[in-house]
Amino acid sequence: MKSMEEVEVSKFRRGLQEKELDSVVREHSLTIFLNGEEVVNLLCSPSDLECLGVGYLLSEGFLMDGKDIKSVLLKEEDRIEIEIENGQPFLRKGPLTITSGCGRGATFRWFLDRARAWKINSSLKVSREAVLRLMSQLQNKSKLFQSTGGVHSASLADEKDVLIFKEDIGRHNAMDKVLGEAFLRNIKTDDKIALTSGRLSSEIVLKIVKRKIPVLVSRAAPTSLGIELAERVGVTLIGFARGERMNIYTHPQRLQ
Amino acid sequence: MKSMEEVEVSKFRRGLQEKELDSVVREHSLTIFLNGEEVVNLLCSPSDLECLGVGYLLSEGFLMDGKDIKSVLLKEEDRIEIEIENGQPFLRKGPLTITSGCGRGATFRWFLDRARAWKINSSLKVSREAVLRLMSQLQNKSKLFQSTGGVHSASLADEKDVLIFKEDIGRHNAMDKVLGEAFLRNIKTDDKIALTSGRLSSEIVLKIVKRKIPVLVSRAAPTSLGIELAERVGVTLIGFARGERMNIYTHPQRLQ
Repeated sequence: MKSMEEVEVSKFRRGLQEKELDSVVREHSLTIFLNGEEVVNLLCSPSDLECLGVGYLLSEGFLMDGKDIKSVLLKEEDRIEIEIENGQPFLRKGPLTITSGCGRGATFRWFLDRARAWKINSSLKVSREAVLRLMSQLQNKSKLFQSTGGVHSASLADEKDVLIFKEDIGRHNAMDKVLGEAFLRNIKTDDKIALTSGRLSSEIVLKIVKRKIPVLVSRAAPTSLGIELAERVGVTLIGFARGERMNIYTHPQRLQ
Repeated sequence: MKSMEEVEVSKFRRGLQEKELDSVVREHSLTIFLNGEEVVNLLCSPSDLECLGVGYLLSEGFLMDGKDIKSVLLKEEDRIEIEIENGQPFLRKGPLTITSGCGRGATFRWFLDRARAWKINSSLKVSREAVLRLMSQLQNKSKLFQSTGGVHSASLADEKDVLIFKEDIGRHNAMDKVLGEAFLRNIKTDDKIALTSGRLSSEIVLKIVKRKIPVLVSRAAPTSLGIELAERVGVTLIGFARGERMNIYTHPQRLQ
């Protein structure tokens, strides 16, 4: 499916209005089923939907390392059916937690209390130059953003190169697509770097923690809870990584 | 409560790393109760929480014009208790719909099918110059964004002036705060203009439609579903409104 479409727009510029064709980003509806049960309906960009389904299940704790995926089936482009070995039946417990305008059902406060159990002790070292180079790669790869201005991008990288790159209208979806593909391709994540174009709110940090990724970099700003969580769990959190600068909010010992 | 806090940051610039204090935006947890029942837990900026609570209930259809609010009570800064006359008991029906990384429980597809019932027939006319002037006011007012780079802003305006201005780490929350305050202050919305710094996805358009606001303007990009919904319902949708330009995606007849 195409990730953008052409629409007729009335463009107004310095006093003149003209009709033109322009590209806008597509917003697509996807329903995820786990072992036959409907889990969630996402609005997303219509690409890498298998990765998005698997990544969503990882981020929400329905799927963990060591669990086997029996099948991932995309049907009619708007439903994805995932079968997991010994999958837990899906139960929505208690009320929904919605995050900074970018909601997923994660129970953040519950998690913060137990953060020590998730402690990341990776001895990974990365050079500051590599971080800035990877961020500039992320930006150059984002052709859809360049055409439409309407998407976020996310990546998994090692110090040398971007290994996985995904785009989506939602910054959470973009990261879930990356994490889902890493899981499906059996790429280790606990020695890698995660990159995002979006803000570093608590829930983005939470996704990274669940996959034991020791370094998270963004060109955008962090929030207080994002920093608090990264500090407690041991993630190196870097914001405003643009051009030749970056802000290192937590665990700077991993940077050389 | 303060909307930002100071944190120690290692700033790296052109080869030099230095520790500095910097402002980051706060991310706060708020639980909304309706007639004694827990509805949702939001992560948000800790300001205008009464407006956010009421606006959320409006956007999610728990509260409508003609309903009376008996009380809005903020307790311990992290729970808001709202009592509504003849409030419906809260029932989560079916699976959750999550939007473009910015989720709320709205059932968008259901809505699109019934869009005709919500038709907006407002005869409001606005000059293009007024739209651009209002957007520039929105940007100038956003002191928190200027300090932290981590928030969205939203406004309700008439052609002359910005009437309500709110900020939040989430673009949905910022708009809900605006709509909540308009409801609490009995400000008519069906002859006004809504402004946002965020993308025009289907769910932002849906909020505007529910309050019968005929014009929605953003400095950012629209999505395909945002445009489709605005077209069907009769909202004038304007994106990329920056400096002296803007793109008018739907119903340009309201612009002079």
